Amino acid sequence: MKLVLDAMGGDYAPLETVAGAVDYAHDTQHTIILVGKADTIYEELGKYNTAGLDLPVIDAPEVISMEERPAMAVRRKKKNSMVVGMRLVRTGEADAFCSVGNTGAILTAGHMVFRRIRGVHRAVLTTPFPNFRGHHVFGDVGANTDCRPEWLVQWGHLLSIFAEARLNIHNPRVALLSNGEEEGKGNELIKNAQELMAQELDLNYMGVIEPKEMFEGAADVVVADGFTGNITVKTSEAVARYLMTILKEEIMSRPLAKAGALLSKPAFNAASERLDDKTYGAGMLLGLNGLVTIGHGRAKRDSVYYALKTTARLVEADILQKTRLKIESLLKTQRNRGVDA
Amino acid sequence: MKLVLDAMGGDYAPLETVAGAVDYAHDTQHTIILVGKADTIYEELGKYNTAGLDLPVIDAPEVISMEERPAMAVRRKKKNSMVVGMRLVRTGEADAFCSVGNTGAILTAGHMVFRRIRGVHRAVLTTPFPNFRGHHVFGDVGANTDCRPEWLVQWGHLLSIFAEARLNIHNPRVALLSNGEEEGKGNELIKNAQELMAQELDLNYMGVIEPKEMFEGAADVVVADGFTGNITVKTSEAVARYLMTILKEEIMSRPLAKAGALLSKPAFNAASERLDDKTYGAGMLLGLNGLVTIGHGRAKRDSVYYALKTTARLVEADILQKTRLKIESLLKTQRNRGVDA
Repeated sequence: MKLVLDAMGGDYAPLETVAGAVDYAHDTQHTIILVGKADTIYEELGKYNTAGLDLPVIDAPEVISMEERPAMAVRRKKKNSMVVGMRLVRTGEADAFCSVGNTGAILTAGHMVFRRIRGVHRAVLTTPFPNFRGHHVFGDVGANTDCRPEWLVQWGHLLSIFAEARLNIHNPRVALLSNGEEEGKGNELIKNAQELMAQELDLNYMGVIEPKEMFEGAADVVVADGFTGNITVKTSEAVARYLMTILKEEIMSRPLAKAGALLSKPAFNAASERLDDKTYGAGMLLGLNGLVTIGHGRAKRDSVYYALKTTARLVEADILQKTRLKIESLLKTQRNRGVDA
Repeated sequence: MKLVLDAMGGDYAPLETVAGAVDYAHDTQHTIILVGKADTIYEELGKYNTAGLDLPVIDAPEVISMEERPAMAVRRKKKNSMVVGMRLVRTGEADAFCSVGNTGAILTAGHMVFRRIRGVHRAVLTTPFPNFRGHHVFGDVGANTDCRPEWLVQWGHLLSIFAEARLNIHNPRVALLSNGEEEGKGNELIKNAQELMAQELDLNYMGVIEPKEMFEGAADVVVADGFTGNITVKTSEAVARYLMTILKEEIMSRPLAKAGALLSKPAFNAASERLDDKTYGAGMLLGLNGLVTIGHGRAKRDSVYYALKTTARLVEADILQKTRLKIESLLKTQRNRGVDA
């Protein structure tokens, strides 16, 4: 297995990206190709004992920061770690590309280097999302802000493949995220997608669900447009931070509560870990002619490790080939319907 | 002051609605007209000492449950507490209508009885929303799922009036909720609304914000389409419940943590109260020819009390007249622009 890691991606690159890669190579003996500014990567690698590990470095002198306008930066800086790294996958020198960098830049670079699989309306950004029962798959979480109903239907299929490969869920239950199930709820997009999804063969569609049900784990795959999906993810993060801060404020203002909180600290830590689950690994940009995974920009050493682990798992599950076959079969069904009509 | 309370609205009606009304009438000597099934209301009233209080009961024999399809129910059951109650406001027998019932039904009844103020594109459902610094005003939170940019602009103005009246914020900072400020972020609706808002005179528009900034209290008024707004509110509630449950699970599985949590319980309770702030009172359906406030369906006695208090405050602030004047001035500006062009 040969994975490409964008050594320059994320808030703590290349320090944490290189560290995560070293740990991962150590445990798996996989080849991790580190792409980025070669001198700084070598400097980081120098800190570890890498004897016996396969950690080749490919120089990509241009760096896209987390703040840069992604589309422009990718096009202007062709020698950035993303484009250079993805090209290694396109030419067959590696199996997949993994980054914890600027999502917008990854989207642009991914489309530029790999292009969409023929028949895919739009690539979908997906991530495993925590719920009471474990995790479900959520997408689109930010690649497409204005969507058509048929895109959401196709994503239902693609995300089902991802849920099987990533979370080992057989025949995953698919739902559309909406603001309610009652009459008059849902916007035009969701109402139209709902109608189309219900007609879909070979899709375990269960209907629309509200955020409450999503957190209860009612569905294995939750489909939304990228604007709503992204705002939902960002609201969840913001509320979690807000809540923890308020709780802390109230505890710190009470001496007895403060003492009590010391005793319950392990429980707080365990809860935090469940929320900020580093073993999540990464999400994926699904629908391109190349395997691209995307981890959280705040990823540290262990999150980078798990992002690589996820990537390897998706390579092993042959998710790219499964996606292609699914799209082919969907196109075939469409053609047959055309003949029937 | 004469307020109408929908005695049959909400999960705990008429028990908690009547109790809240009695408490409120006791403290303020305002007239609270209780509308709903007269016999059950009298039964509830019988439990309290109401000597000296003005709590007239108006019979509305038909009840719309929280589960019913709102639009249909309102039209079929004309003698429901909402339509009957709102008519008392329309005919001038009361100053405002307050309900903690089925939001969809209130929307339908409100439009049916009051109609929109001439010049208002669509009525907007708004609610005060908690943030690190206090509260801001958020809308639309569910009245309009598919929106036009100019509606959002007008809501910026209307919600500013609400923020002044409700939260005492002078010249409130207005923002559009989006999934990011960078290039390529925002959907078409937000991008178009953004352009229009930036040109708006007499509106303290500050730009787009993300959920994170909303929770930081970056804006006093946050505008979204009703689909996104509703999902944001529902996601916030779901995440809060999810987090508290996880924390509880982790605490209960550790004897020491359990002991500690007992000591810190007052802090937890204080945090819960800050989140589920009963003093919020109610939101409002803004843009109709009548003052309609809407509290949470789970409202108990004290929440009903504060919903009535909010309603009275909005009557005192003369929000209806301020809304009408604002719309007139907006129409005038538009006409002048037309002449200029």
